[in-house]
Amino acid sequence: MSEKIYTAGLVVIGDEILSGRTHDKNIAQVASWLQVQNIRLDEVRVVADVQERIVEAVNALRARNDYLFTTGGIGPTHDDITVDAVAEALGVGVVIHPDARAILERYYSDKGGLNDARLRMARVPDGAELIPNQKTGAPGIKIGNIHLMAGVPHITAGMLDALTGSLEGGAPLLSETVGGFIPESEVSTLLREVEKAHENCQLGSYPFFREGKVGSNFVIRSTDADALQSCMHVLCEGLGELGFDFTPGGI
Amino acid sequence: MSEKIYTAGLVVIGDEILSGRTHDKNIAQVASWLQVQNIRLDEVRVVADVQERIVEAVNALRARNDYLFTTGGIGPTHDDITVDAVAEALGVGVVIHPDARAILERYYSDKGGLNDARLRMARVPDGAELIPNQKTGAPGIKIGNIHLMAGVPHITAGMLDALTGSLEGGAPLLSETVGGFIPESEVSTLLREVEKAHENCQLGSYPFFREGKVGSNFVIRSTDADALQSCMHVLCEGLGELGFDFTPGGI
Repeated sequence: MSEKIYTAGLVVIGDEILSGRTHDKNIAQVASWLQVQNIRLDEVRVVADVQERIVEAVNALRARNDYLFTTGGIGPTHDDITVDAVAEALGVGVVIHPDARAILERYYSDKGGLNDARLRMARVPDGAELIPNQKTGAPGIKIGNIHLMAGVPHITAGMLDALTGSLEGGAPLLSETVGGFIPESEVSTLLREVEKAHENCQLGSYPFFREGKVGSNFVIRSTDADALQSCMHVLCEGLGELGFDFTPGGI
Repeated sequence: MSEKIYTAGLVVIGDEILSGRTHDKNIAQVASWLQVQNIRLDEVRVVADVQERIVEAVNALRARNDYLFTTGGIGPTHDDITVDAVAEALGVGVVIHPDARAILERYYSDKGGLNDARLRMARVPDGAELIPNQKTGAPGIKIGNIHLMAGVPHITAGMLDALTGSLEGGAPLLSETVGGFIPESEVSTLLREVEKAHENCQLGSYPFFREGKVGSNFVIRSTDADALQSCMHVLCEGLGELGFDFTPGGI
C-alpha cells in the first residue's frame, strides 16, 4: 500500500534576509514543525519585497504542493505587501476582515488605539480565515491551502502552535541516525548499496569536521518502520565490517 | 547616471535543510559576502537532492541573474548530484578535471589514497574551472556564471574567500540604520512618505520585541551617498517630531 505523501512549499519574504542583515530562522522552524505534522517541506524560496516576485513564487509553490506557507510582509508598513501579492496570485480582492479589526481594536485599546497603519493588519485576501496570534494581536491568514505568517520568528512560532494538528498529513516519516568519525568518502559504495537494497528508504550522508577530525552522520528516512530497522541493521553491519566505530543516534 | 546593478541567485541543495535536521547557515553567509562584492542576492531556492528539481532551480535563477551560486551536493556520496544536475542544465557532459584529480591525489596521499568515491569529487561539468578549497582538498567548481560550492559552511566560507574580488560588481549599496523602541505601526505614514520623497533609496522596517517592549530598526539602502544621508536626516527629523527617541546605527 502506497500512502499519499503530503507536501508543503515555503515562501520567505524579505529584503532583510537577502541582504544578509537578518539570519533567517523561519526555514528551520517551519521545516521542523512540518515534520511533526507528517508533511514534507518540498521547496523554499526566499524572495524580495517586490509584489510580482512574491506572486510568482506563491503561484509556483501552491500549485505543486498540498500546502503553502509564507513568512514575512504582513505588518503595518509600506513594505508589507504579502496580502496584496497573495490576493493577486489568487485573483481575489483585499478586504478588511471584521474579526481581525475587532482583535486589533482590543489589542491597541490601551496602546493609542487603531490607526490607519494598524488597520492594515486587518486586511486579508477576500475569503480568508484568521490564524490566531497570541503574542501581538495581528493575526496570521489562511486562504485555501495558503498560510500567511509573521516574519518575526517568535510570532511565527505562536501561529504554528495555533495550526498544530489542524492540517491533514500522511504517514509519519520515521528516521534513524548513525554516525562516527567516518570519512564519507570511505563508505560511499556501502551507502549506495544499502540504499539500493532498501527501496522504501532514503539514506543521507552528512559530513562534518570536529575536534580536528572528519566524520559523518548517516540518516535513514522511511515511512515503513520495519524497512527502516532492516536498513539500519544492514548499514551498521557494513560499517562494522569496514572496521569503523559508529554510534547509533549519531554524533 | 544609472549604474548597472549586478544580481545573484542562490540554490541551496539538501534534504537535510528541508527536513529541519540542519539549520542552514549558507544563505546568510553568501548574502553577506555578496553585499561586500557589491552584488545583490535576488532570490534563494532550497531544493531537495532530486536532479530534476536542481536543474529547474539552476536554470530559472541562472537566466535571470548575473551570477548563480549553489551550496551542497558536491561530496563523494550517492546523494551528491549537483555536478550532474548543473551539467544537465547546461547541456554538457561530466568529465574528470585533471587538476582536481591531482589535488585530491595529493590530499588523500596520507589518508588511504584516491578511491572511486573520492574521485567523484574531481567530476565537473565539461569546460569548468576549479574554485580552491584550502580546508579539505575537494575543490568548488566554476562554469560560466555558475559557482558550485560545498554544503558544509566552513568549507563554503573558504571557497568564498577564494572568490573574493574576482566577480564584477556594481556600485556599493550603502546603508544607514536608525532604531528605537518605536512601534512601526505608529510611524508607517512617516516611513511611506520618506521613502516616496527619496526615489533612490529603499527604506525597510524591521520590528522586534525585546525587554518586554516592541521596537523597530529602520534601514535605508542606496547606491547614492548623498541621497542616503538626506533620507536619513529627514527620517530622524520625522521620528523626533513624532516624539520618539531613536538611536543612529539601530538598537
